[in-house]
Amino acid sequence: MIPKFITLSLLICALFRRAAAARVLRMRPGSASFKIAVFADLHFGEEAWSDWGPIQDANSTVVISTVLHDENPDLVVYLGDVITANNIATPNAATFYWEMALSPAKARGIPWATVFGNHDDAPFSWPLQWFSSAGIPHQQKYCRLGSAGGGRGCEFRGTRRLELMKNEVENNSLSRSRSGPTDLWPTISNYYLQISPSDGLELSPVINLYFLDSGGGSYPEVISSSQVEWFRRTAQQINPYSEVAEIVFWHIPSGAYEEVAPYSLIEEPCVGSINKEKVAAQQAEFGIMTLLQQRPSVKAVFVGHNHGLDWCCPHKSKNKLWLCFARHSGYGGYGDWPRGARIIQITHKPFSLKSWIRMEDGQLHSQVILSS
Amino acid sequence: MIPKFITLSLLICALFRRAAAARVLRMRPGSASFKIAVFADLHFGEEAWSDWGPIQDANSTVVISTVLHDENPDLVVYLGDVITANNIATPNAATFYWEMALSPAKARGIPWATVFGNHDDAPFSWPLQWFSSAGIPHQQKYCRLGSAGGGRGCEFRGTRRLELMKNEVENNSLSRSRSGPTDLWPTISNYYLQISPSDGLELSPVINLYFLDSGGGSYPEVISSSQVEWFRRTAQQINPYSEVAEIVFWHIPSGAYEEVAPYSLIEEPCVGSINKEKVAAQQAEFGIMTLLQQRPSVKAVFVGHNHGLDWCCPHKSKNKLWLCFARHSGYGGYGDWPRGARIIQITHKPFSLKSWIRMEDGQLHSQVILSS
Repeated sequence: MIPKFITLSLLICALFRRAAAARVLRMRPGSASFKIAVFADLHFGEEAWSDWGPIQDANSTVVISTVLHDENPDLVVYLGDVITANNIATPNAATFYWEMALSPAKARGIPWATVFGNHDDAPFSWPLQWFSSAGIPHQQKYCRLGSAGGGRGCEFRGTRRLELMKNEVENNSLSRSRSGPTDLWPTISNYYLQISPSDGLELSPVINLYFLDSGGGSYPEVISSSQVEWFRRTAQQINPYSEVAEIVFWHIPSGAYEEVAPYSLIEEPCVGSINKEKVAAQQAEFGIMTLLQQRPSVKAVFVGHNHGLDWCCPHKSKNKLWLCFARHSGYGGYGDWPRGARIIQITHKPFSLKSWIRMEDGQLHSQVILSS
Repeated sequence: MIPKFITLSLLICALFRRAAAARVLRMRPGSASFKIAVFADLHFGEEAWSDWGPIQDANSTVVISTVLHDENPDLVVYLGDVITANNIATPNAATFYWEMALSPAKARGIPWATVFGNHDDAPFSWPLQWFSSAGIPHQQKYCRLGSAGGGRGCEFRGTRRLELMKNEVENNSLSRSRSGPTDLWPTISNYYLQISPSDGLELSPVINLYFLDSGGGSYPEVISSSQVEWFRRTAQQINPYSEVAEIVFWHIPSGAYEEVAPYSLIEEPCVGSINKEKVAAQQAEFGIMTLLQQRPSVKAVFVGHNHGLDWCCPHKSKNKLWLCFARHSGYGGYGDWPRGARIIQITHKPFSLKSWIRMEDGQLHSQVILSS
C-alpha cells in the first residue's frame, strides 16, 4: 500500500505540472520558429440590434479565418475590444459574441490568449435614437416589460471581465488565457505564457509572453501599481537574469507611445503603413514603462485601441524596446481602414523576433525586426 | 349579507380614492397659499470613502434643515442628483444615502417628491488614485476578496432608479414620488401631483405639478418622445382646457435654457444672483419644449444640474413661460458657491406664483413673479 503522503505528493506534482504545462507552448516538432497572429479591436456584437451589426460580425469572422489560413500561426492573441459590450443588452449575449470571436481559432485547433480592452466589460449604453419617436426597437427582446415593476429583467449591465474569462477558460480547452491573481482585482487578464523549443528536453523557454489588463470599461484606463509589482515579481521569478526574451501585450497604449509617435509620415526608425490619428493613451502611468525599460530582455510591447495606427517605433531608451500597434482587425469599431492582423514570428537558434502585417486581401507589409 | 359585487365595488372605489388622494396635496386649513422648497444637487454619498465625504453630507443636512426651519414649506422637491451614485460602491449604500437626504423632511413631517438626476443611478466609478501605490483603501469594505473568484461580492454596479424609487415609496408614507408608467421605461420619475385649496369641497386644483425624468447615468440625458406623449395625454386628461396652472420639474436643463441664458450679468427680464457657467443642456430634444410652449397654462420649468446658475429667465415664446434654475443645495458636487434652495409659493384667489432663493445663512434674494 502506497503511503498517503506519497499519493498526496504525486497528486500535487501532477497538478503543478499540469498548471505549468498550460503556460508552456512548444514550437512544432522540427520547427525552430513560432508564429503568433494578433487580432485587435474585433468589436463583435456592435449594433447587435441593427441589420448592420451582424453583417460586420460576419465580415470580422472572414478577416480572422483568412489570416489564419494564410499564416497558419501557432497561437492567436485577441488583443482586447473583442466585443463591443456597451452595445450588448443581456449578459449571456456577451459570452455569445465572445465565443463568436474565438470560433475561427477553435475551428483550426489553434490555441489562443485573450486580454481585455475598454469595450469588453462595460454596461449597456443606450443609443440616443431609441428615445426618439422611433422608440426602442423590438422592445420585447431587450426587456420583459412585466419585470419593470421591480424584477431584474431590465438590467442591462453587461458581463463582467471575471465572468467572461471564467466562461472562456471553462468552455475551451484551447484557451491559454487566465484570470490574474485576485490581489490585482479589478484588473483581470494578467498572466504569462512561455514558448519553448520543440525539443522537450530543453528547459529554458525561447520567449516569455506577458499579458496585462490595461483597464477601461468598468474601471479607469490604467495599468495599476499592483500590476507593475506583479510584473516585477513574476519576471524576477521566471527570468531572474533577463536571459529569456520578453514581449508584452495589453490593449491601451501607454503615454510612451505618444512620445515616439511619428509626426505625420511614418519614417525610419519607425515601420508601419497608417498613422491616421493621435495616440489615445491610458489615463495615468504607475510605473510599467519604467520597469520595462530597465529590463533589457523586454523586446516589444503590442497594443491595439487606436484603429488608425499600425506602426512600430523604438522607445527612446538605451535598450531597444519597440512599441508596436497591432492592426484593426474587426469590421466593428470606428474607422474604415482595410482590416488586417499583426503577425509576430519568434525564431530560435539564432534568436530573432520579426513582425509584419497581414491584410485581409492577402497583402503583407510593414515587416520589421524587433530583436536587433 | 352584502352582495359580493358591492363589496368589490367599494374596495375598488376605496383604492381609487386612496390613489387619487396620494396625488392631491391640500393647502393648510385657513391658508390660501402653498409653499414648495426645492433642493437640487445634494450629492449625498460623495467620496463616501474619505474623511471629506461624510462631513459634506452633514453640511448638506444642515442646509436642508435650516431652510425647512426658515421657510416651513408644505412640500419638498428633491430635484435630482440627490446622491452621487458613481461614488457609492454597494447597492444598499445608495438607499442609505437617499434616506439621509430625505430625513430632514421626514423629521418635520413634510411630504416630498423626488425626481432623478444623472448622478442618482450610475455604476460605481473607480477613482484613478486607487490604482496608484496607495491602492484601494480599506479594501475589505469594498470587496470580499474571497468572492473575486466568481461570486457577486465585487459587483459595484449601483442601485437602479426603479429600486431607489421602490425603496423610497414603500418605506416612507410622506413620499409623494412615483415610478412613471412602465411604457416610459427606462425613464422612471414621471408623475404629477395636484395642489388643491384647503376647502375640500372645491374640486378644481390650484396648480398641477409635473415631474419628468431627464435621464443621465444609466441612459442618455434626454426627455424621450414617449415622455412627451405621456405629458400630452396626461395634461389633456387632467387639465383639458388649460384652466389650471402648471409647473414642471426635471433635472437637466433643455436646450431652451441655452437660448435664454444671460450673457454675463443677470439683467431684466431675468432674475437671479449667479451666472457662473454655461448651461449644460440635455443631449437632444424630442419635443417637450414645443409642447410646453403650446400650453398657456404652463408657467415655469425648474431644473438643477448647473451648480453655478440660479436664474429665472422668460422663454422666448408668446405665452410667458419661465425657465428657472434651482440653487445648488448640497456640499457634495462641484462648485463652492454658497448653498441655498429655491422656494416656490402658490397663492389662490387671486392666483399668483412667486419664487425666491433662501440661503443657508438665512438671506433671501432673487424674488420673482412667475404668473404675470
